[in-house]
Amino acid sequence: MKEEKIHLYIQEIDGEPWLVEDDRGNLKVSYRVKEIIFVAQSPFQHIMILDTYDFGRMLVLDGVVQSTEKDGYIYNEMIAHVPLHIHPHPKKVLIIGGGDCGAAREIIKYKSVEELYFCEIDELVVKASKEHLKGVSDGLEDERIRYLFADGIQYMKEHTNEFDVIIVDSSDPIGPATQLFEYEFYKNVFDALKEDGLMVCQSESPIFYNEVMQNTYQSLQKLFNITKQYTAVVPTYPGGLWSFTLASKKYESFIEPDYEKTTKYFNEEMLKASFALPQFMLNK
Amino acid sequence: MKEEKIHLYIQEIDGEPWLVEDDRGNLKVSYRVKEIIFVAQSPFQHIMILDTYDFGRMLVLDGVVQSTEKDGYIYNEMIAHVPLHIHPHPKKVLIIGGGDCGAAREIIKYKSVEELYFCEIDELVVKASKEHLKGVSDGLEDERIRYLFADGIQYMKEHTNEFDVIIVDSSDPIGPATQLFEYEFYKNVFDALKEDGLMVCQSESPIFYNEVMQNTYQSLQKLFNITKQYTAVVPTYPGGLWSFTLASKKYESFIEPDYEKTTKYFNEEMLKASFALPQFMLNK
Repeated sequence: MKEEKIHLYIQEIDGEPWLVEDDRGNLKVSYRVKEIIFVAQSPFQHIMILDTYDFGRMLVLDGVVQSTEKDGYIYNEMIAHVPLHIHPHPKKVLIIGGGDCGAAREIIKYKSVEELYFCEIDELVVKASKEHLKGVSDGLEDERIRYLFADGIQYMKEHTNEFDVIIVDSSDPIGPATQLFEYEFYKNVFDALKEDGLMVCQSESPIFYNEVMQNTYQSLQKLFNITKQYTAVVPTYPGGLWSFTLASKKYESFIEPDYEKTTKYFNEEMLKASFALPQFMLNK
Repeated sequence: MKEEKIHLYIQEIDGEPWLVEDDRGNLKVSYRVKEIIFVAQSPFQHIMILDTYDFGRMLVLDGVVQSTEKDGYIYNEMIAHVPLHIHPHPKKVLIIGGGDCGAAREIIKYKSVEELYFCEIDELVVKASKEHLKGVSDGLEDERIRYLFADGIQYMKEHTNEFDVIIVDSSDPIGPATQLFEYEFYKNVFDALKEDGLMVCQSESPIFYNEVMQNTYQSLQKLFNITKQYTAVVPTYPGGLWSFTLASKKYESFIEPDYEKTTKYFNEEMLKASFALPQFMLNK
């Protein structure tokens, strides 16, 4: 089974292994692979860590690239630093998803954070990333992190008025992750936040999944006082341009938090710039 | 010859044609093709216009995607509107390259422009784009446009103190376009500009061709008083994030020009935001 599963995603071209990412029917992106570092089938998904020529090591779930050493920091910095530059005193933070550990690595750079709850359904993704994807997940030996290997949807149903910041770092809305894009889930996130809490989620490509992005925005707008979209460039995600949606009960101004300034994409100019939206995103 | 050439770039996968773009050795991007609209070999390059499922019609030169109906406007708006939001009275504008006609289409939206010189070496690219790529090139029946089917490098050697704005809209620095990235060419551009003139050029991917981008910046900095980099997202260019370099003899503030506001990506917020640079671009 294992061998068969590898060959679903890895093809031999001119005698060399390539990852052929073809989750979208009309576009295939193929990455030349130096070495297959890790392959496993968890109860939830097929997991690979590959070493590639152009992107270094990458985490691949069910054949789709999630995070790479070359560009993973862009996504992870933008989903983590933006909310923590708006909430003025985030003590208790929750990440739902984010198995590559990159968002967690960014959040523990903030001095104010006392507890980081890290709710990822698939323990094996976290284990594999910590062991084999150090370029993304390094530096996670921090006693403030509470690992919860649990279903984020269920977890949200059981918590109320508890978190300052919730980060929904999901994969695409296919299979189990679909529910992470639904109104009911966002309602539970709203309830799990304190009365001055805020959340952020990745909301897909404005170019290719405009409907997902719009639906996310509309759902959150029904719940929260403040809802804003921002963007970043993620080279290994289709279309390059990626959207995030921030929803807040109270805060919306940028603050100057105390954090370890070791980012590679994020800085204060990029923070402001990321909220400028292309004209086609404004023409709703 | 024609048939043979097509098969260099178009592959049949499961009975359907795909464009397999593999100009970079370790990454292949494949686009499912609806219809091959136009194929020709000009004296300069192999030219195709394809209708694709995800990106609509696209211009492909020597097997590399140059411009598409789906995302071509992003690149074209950003190379055209940014300089024309800085030069306060651009009357005589020159485009070098830009065979897809998209930059020209944006420039003639400006009322102040009296003459637009359009110096593209390959007449057949312009002809094919005007006929078959209307989603990018439409609206070019304007008597202010002067077509010059000439070598931009030679043309720059022969002109002095003549243009307000020069836009260098080149393909990648491979083959003949290499010279468009060299100091000597930029020196001639400098001389061809009036004493308050400015220029802009595309300067490749900050992620994958960082050296080209840095060399461009350094060459221009030696010549001009003001040199600045800005970025945009171009989904069909490798890495998504794309850099442009602006070099100006005098002007650097943003102005509010009189132009036809029909852009899909560009707006005044995006103008300002595009000059915010990711941290790794600042760590020189």
